[in-house]
Amino acid sequence: MPELASLSTTGAADALDAAEVAVLPTGSTEQHGPALPLGMDHLAAEAFAGAVADRPETIVLPTIPIGVSPHHMQFDGSLTVSDETFATFVEETVRSLAEHDLRKVVLVNGHGGNVGALGRATRSLRADEVAYAPTWNWWDAVDDVAEELFDEAGGHADAAESSLIWHLHEELVDPESLEDAEADGAEGWGETVHGAQVGFDTVDFTESGAVGAPTQASPEAGETLFEAAREELEGLLDWLAERPMDDCWQRAHR
Amino acid sequence: MPELASLSTTGAADALDAAEVAVLPTGSTEQHGPALPLGMDHLAAEAFAGAVADRPETIVLPTIPIGVSPHHMQFDGSLTVSDETFATFVEETVRSLAEHDLRKVVLVNGHGGNVGALGRATRSLRADEVAYAPTWNWWDAVDDVAEELFDEAGGHADAAESSLIWHLHEELVDPESLEDAEADGAEGWGETVHGAQVGFDTVDFTESGAVGAPTQASPEAGETLFEAAREELEGLLDWLAERPMDDCWQRAHR
Amino acid sequence: MPELASLSTTGAADALDAAEVAVLPTGSTEQHGPALPLGMDHLAAEAFAGAVADRPETIVLPTIPIGVSPHHMQFDGSLTVSDETFATFVEETVRSLAEHDLRKVVLVNGHGGNVGALGRATRSLRADEVAYAPTWNWWDAVDDVAEELFDEAGGHADAAESSLIWHLHEELVDPESLEDAEADGAEGWGETVHGAQVGFDTVDFTESGAVGAPTQASPEAGETLFEAAREELEGLLDWLAERPMDDCWQRAHR
Amino acid sequence: MPELASLSTTGAADALDAAEVAVLPTGSTEQHGPALPLGMDHLAAEAFAGAVADRPETIVLPTIPIGVSPHHMQFDGSLTVSDETFATFVEETVRSLAEHDLRKVVLVNGHGGNVGALGRATRSLRADEVAYAPTWNWWDAVDDVAEELFDEAGGHADAAESSLIWHLHEELVDPESLEDAEADGAEGWGETVHGAQVGFDTVDFTESGAVGAPTQASPEAGETLFEAAREELEGLLDWLAERPMDDCWQRAHR
Amino acid sequence: MPELASLSTTGAADALDAAEVAVLPTGSTEQHGPALPLGMDHLAAEAFAGAVADRPETIVLPTIPIGVSPHHMQFDGSLTVSDETFATFVEETVRSLAEHDLRKVVLVNGHGGNVGALGRATRSLRADEVAYAPTWNWWDAVDDVAEELFDEAGGHADAAESSLIWHLHEELVDPESLEDAEADGAEGWGETVHGAQVGFDTVDFTESGAVGAPTQASPEAGETLFEAAREELEGLLDWLAERPMDDCWQRAHR
Amino acid sequence: MPELASLSTTGAADALDAAEVAVLPTGSTEQHGPALPLGMDHLAAEAFAGAVADRPETIVLPTIPIGVSPHHMQFDGSLTVSDETFATFVEETVRSLAEHDLRKVVLVNGHGGNVGALGRATRSLRADEVAYAPTWNWWDAVDDVAEELFDEAGGHADAAESSLIWHLHEELVDPESLEDAEADGAEGWGETVHGAQVGFDTVDFTESGAVGAPTQASPEAGETLFEAAREELEGLLDWLAERPMDDCWQRAHR
Repeated sequence: MPELASLSTTGAADALDAAEVAVLPTGSTEQHGPALPLGMDHLAAEAFAGAVADRPETIVLPTIPIGVSPHHMQFDGSLTVSDETFATFVEETVRSLAEHDLRKVVLVNGHGGNVGALGRATRSLRADEVAYAPTWNWWDAVDDVAEELFDEAGGHADAAESSLIWHLHEELVDPESLEDAEADGAEGWGETVHGAQVGFDTVDFTESGAVGAPTQASPEAGETLFEAAREELEGLLDWLAERPMDDCWQRAHR
Repeated sequence: MPELASLSTTGAADALDAAEVAVLPTGSTEQHGPALPLGMDHLAAEAFAGAVADRPETIVLPTIPIGVSPHHMQFDGSLTVSDETFATFVEETVRSLAEHDLRKVVLVNGHGGNVGALGRATRSLRADEVAYAPTWNWWDAVDDVAEELFDEAGGHADAAESSLIWHLHEELVDPESLEDAEADGAEGWGETVHGAQVGFDTVDFTESGAVGAPTQASPEAGETLFEAAREELEGLLDWLAERPMDDCWQRAHR
Repeated sequence: MPELASLSTTGAADALDAAEVAVLPTGSTEQHGPALPLGMDHLAAEAFAGAVADRPETIVLPTIPIGVSPHHMQFDGSLTVSDETFATFVEETVRSLAEHDLRKVVLVNGHGGNVGALGRATRSLRADEVAYAPTWNWWDAVDDVAEELFDEAGGHADAAESSLIWHLHEELVDPESLEDAEADGAEGWGETVHGAQVGFDTVDFTESGAVGAPTQASPEAGETLFEAAREELEGLLDWLAERPMDDCWQRAHR
Repeated sequence: MPELASLSTTGAADALDAAEVAVLPTGSTEQHGPALPLGMDHLAAEAFAGAVADRPETIVLPTIPIGVSPHHMQFDGSLTVSDETFATFVEETVRSLAEHDLRKVVLVNGHGGNVGALGRATRSLRADEVAYAPTWNWWDAVDDVAEELFDEAGGHADAAESSLIWHLHEELVDPESLEDAEADGAEGWGETVHGAQVGFDTVDFTESGAVGAPTQASPEAGETLFEAAREELEGLLDWLAERPMDDCWQRAHR
Repeated sequence: MPELASLSTTGAADALDAAEVAVLPTGSTEQHGPALPLGMDHLAAEAFAGAVADRPETIVLPTIPIGVSPHHMQFDGSLTVSDETFATFVEETVRSLAEHDLRKVVLVNGHGGNVGALGRATRSLRADEVAYAPTWNWWDAVDDVAEELFDEAGGHADAAESSLIWHLHEELVDPESLEDAEADGAEGWGETVHGAQVGFDTVDFTESGAVGAPTQASPEAGETLFEAAREELEGLLDWLAERPMDDCWQRAHR
Repeated sequence: MPELASLSTTGAADALDAAEVAVLPTGSTEQHGPALPLGMDHLAAEAFAGAVADRPETIVLPTIPIGVSPHHMQFDGSLTVSDETFATFVEETVRSLAEHDLRKVVLVNGHGGNVGALGRATRSLRADEVAYAPTWNWWDAVDDVAEELFDEAGGHADAAESSLIWHLHEELVDPESLEDAEADGAEGWGETVHGAQVGFDTVDFTESGAVGAPTQASPEAGETLFEAAREELEGLLDWLAERPMDDCWQRAHR
């Protein structure tokens, strides 16, 4: 089914009638080191959404390309909105979709910084029985695959992300900078002192902006990751399409 | 200059250094009658932004594809966020850009319903001397051209919009439905009783969702409009690039 | 029927019982150039409300005398609240009226800067089926009359406004300053560059604060305008009084 | 000095230059029993403001006629906005005045329900060194006079209020209903159980809406009260005019 | 019944089943002069709550130890949240309790600065028929007792408060500083000029932070106060337990 | 140094002078299965704060006993405030402390659901250079110790939590119910479908409310955990006390 934005209102009437699930891609525009594009996270989300757009019972909403990235603002080109604004924007978008009586949505998310806000939006939508809209983070769906492919702690602009975007948008990756990304980067996310996270911004612990082992990246690994994740997403969409609406709502008090 | 999202953070450093002006495309996803795609308004904004992306001193931000469309919600497929949320999302996005010291922005807008929110965002940004970010509505820039081309009051999914999107995305227009759009549409926007606007929603005054004379549309007229508007936008970008920053800020109390 | 504020609660019980429609006057306190009083907009609204106060089925609420005027703050004496605060104040006022089961209201408005906020209040009230409260801007109701009387683009403290207040409050007009108002004023509203509104504040495009041709003003023209507008308002009140409540509410999804 | 709303912007320039203090009248539109007008509280505030309007160093702002009255909503004709909205409206109004560099304001208040909100507005204005704006409640200024005149606990639409409005607006008082007001009213405010206020709304403890002994009211007593309070207000304005601005601001940490 | 926080969820199930009323202690952490602990107000509230915790039909919630104290911030150690935040925190806490179907709550309050916020929370909870939650201020419940015991106007860290905390937490009182507290303190609350409260912060009118006659304090007087107040609280809890739920809700429009 | 609430304002002056770091304990009141008290999380935080209260350069603030627990509301006795309210309450509390010029704070946190809100508060405080306030979650500080002690995935009311509270408050634990907790509980947190978290509430995946292997708990293990964690906290406090304030603030744009 084509993307919602491509349909006329009469076309959308039919599409919404046939649809069981909607997909809302969310990401960010923020630094991903010297080798990867700022759009990494929303391009990934958009690609996954595009990959399921031909499913007859799935309808794809426009991508929200800016996310919650205050911790990247010291790096050139990073954009951000606040956690609260992002949560509200997503929640209101899904509420408006639900006015057309489509109440199952997968938030296909490409950015870790969005997760808290998406969780609050999703909880509010369920509590009001407006929509059931779980978040799907592509990296969570394929962490076992990534573990097989790479030897890294990672977390940002790492081998997994670099591979994925290399596969999706070769023209936006600068392979020669992967070395720099890793050399001036960090091995793992954050800076922990006696159990407390004391580095709040990426710049606190990585000079290049990358966290992980991007030199291990390859477009082939990216394809493996992408296909594995796409399959998981399809599985989730099937599961959600078949799940009775009543089972989706918040359970009653015990 | 390529779009911001396509650049790495190091590429963005150079691009931001060279840039004088940024462009933020805003639109909506909402009914545009039976012949035009729901994405009409953000696709138009995106196209204008894309058309100036090769200017060396202009940097293009990602498109915000959902806007303020509560008055279209009775039509299938329309999405909306609230006026307040949209204003905040745009304002915060521009604030984050300004952290990289680029403080001149044109809000390239494709949707009339966004205008109030954009105006408030823009005022707040100027009052705080964060950024000077005037709104550019493509239809305002070429109202004289449209008047020459078409004989319509118009206002929504009309001959002007139909022509523009026909030129930009022929594959998304259903020319055979333009007749229906017009036949079941309204001639002018709204429903006025003794000087008061009493129709708040499009459905109050148009059955098809269109307002105007879409049957007068043609891809050629669309091209004329697009080129004329693009030229105006270039003129605006030139003017803004050259305007001293200090002249952009709010004037002092008289 | 006397104004609501003049009635006791027992008197109000009867009045609300008899009433079909309420009138809420809204305006501003802001510069209107050297010749007209700062209260221009709320005095106009109050005058129109007063002119229909003797209608048995109409009840007049107190005037909200301060409005949305951030764009006039460089001129002495201008007051303002934010767009959001004004919208909320008006909406809550109408919500409280509706608790007495009077759900048809005309927002008799004297200030263009209030229009966006009133529109949002009005939409929210209708969506919740609390009240149907269209905005009535006096100048919209008599634009044809004004066009006949004056040769001006106008827009603020112009011939139309000057005439109206001259008719209503001769003692508050300084006719000798109309010349200055016009000489140091602007012909039309705003400052447009390649289709973009780049002047956000009045001070950006008018030194006197006036926009239009105030020297064409006369108290006689003001009377003509006032009577014409009053008649339109009465027409609107009649129309609204007779309109079935159910026809006032938001239409269902198509 | 005439009221601000009566001045042109050039007149206001002079007036603001000469002014030491501004007066912002605040009240409500809410039930005051069967004998007194709903506008009681804002009419009283307006009258006190009017009584000091001829002082050369005092400038009078427009009256805010609707206040915080949720506890009166069961009585016909009562209007209300929320405590938060009222506080913000007042605070923003004073902030806008302060842009013209007049930073001493007396909030001449006629309604007890506004006191909390005014206090918060006033604190915020002082903390930011925008304006020093103490609240003046007329009844607090003359509680000793009222105690001499009447034998009542009172609190709402009582002998003091009835007398005051009788003196100010004889035409709006229905003396024959004072008996009913008292007979079906309460002696003192609220309903206390073991030290807790358990009656949140007026209707919880008074059938007529009045609290006190309105039958003791007379226009003569009203005049006494009014003159005594006016004198206090003049004293306050003198004191404030002379107080160095620096002494008005919040003290530093000890 | 033990405090809620001490129970397991299964224990709470039984306790909530048996409970008729909940108690939510609220206070502050703010200066109480040189002799009393900063925790005075929440320790008092906690003590009263503890004193009724063994009542089988009463359930005690955790103490909220920080309150609305912006007016004490010049004194070392004072903490505060805003009035709005405190009101929301309390309201949401009670809303969550009500999800377990316990809808009668006494807000056992130890701090005067909280009263406005508690009142708004309480009104909102009642209006939505979520919970009936009157505020109980211990000093209001025993003002007659205090009047018998002490000769003071008082108001803060006075003889009454000093006595109470002396009785409750002897180890936290420094009796030798009571002299200083009084010598450098104020007799009554605030600074009134012509009927207006012009002192917004404690530091405006008391050097020591105390207001009243703390040297009259004694632990014996504290015990008398405590026992008298506890008795009143028990009376209130009895009254509330027996009051039909329907009588608790807001009355309908007259 | 005693807790802040135990000090008088003069005592606090000395304590604040000597203090390098403050500790703010935060937790929740929410179900922890049939064996553990609802107060688990705030009691743990309070215990850790208490354990460092005797350090001369550390000052302990009152415990905030209610947190962000919407996902536990189907279980009896759970209380919650919203994520936004909790974040604001904590942020404002720390802002008020900073007015006394103590700007290093450790948020000693006992509840996972608070982490997002604490992170936002902490970011805002740092961005404004008001305070540097990292969050310390006790379980993060000793995850290696817990891994040695227990064989569980865990996550809520598990062996680690059960042991800790058993050590701290033996009287509040019902060891006989640990079996039930585990039998009707879940092994790991949440319910994942194809990489998406689809269980938003605890009740979605655990009948008892527990997640993990509570039967492995013992007070001895609790002591081990407590001492290990206390040591980490002391290490963090030392580190923070010695860290130059300037190193704590957000880094500049690269």
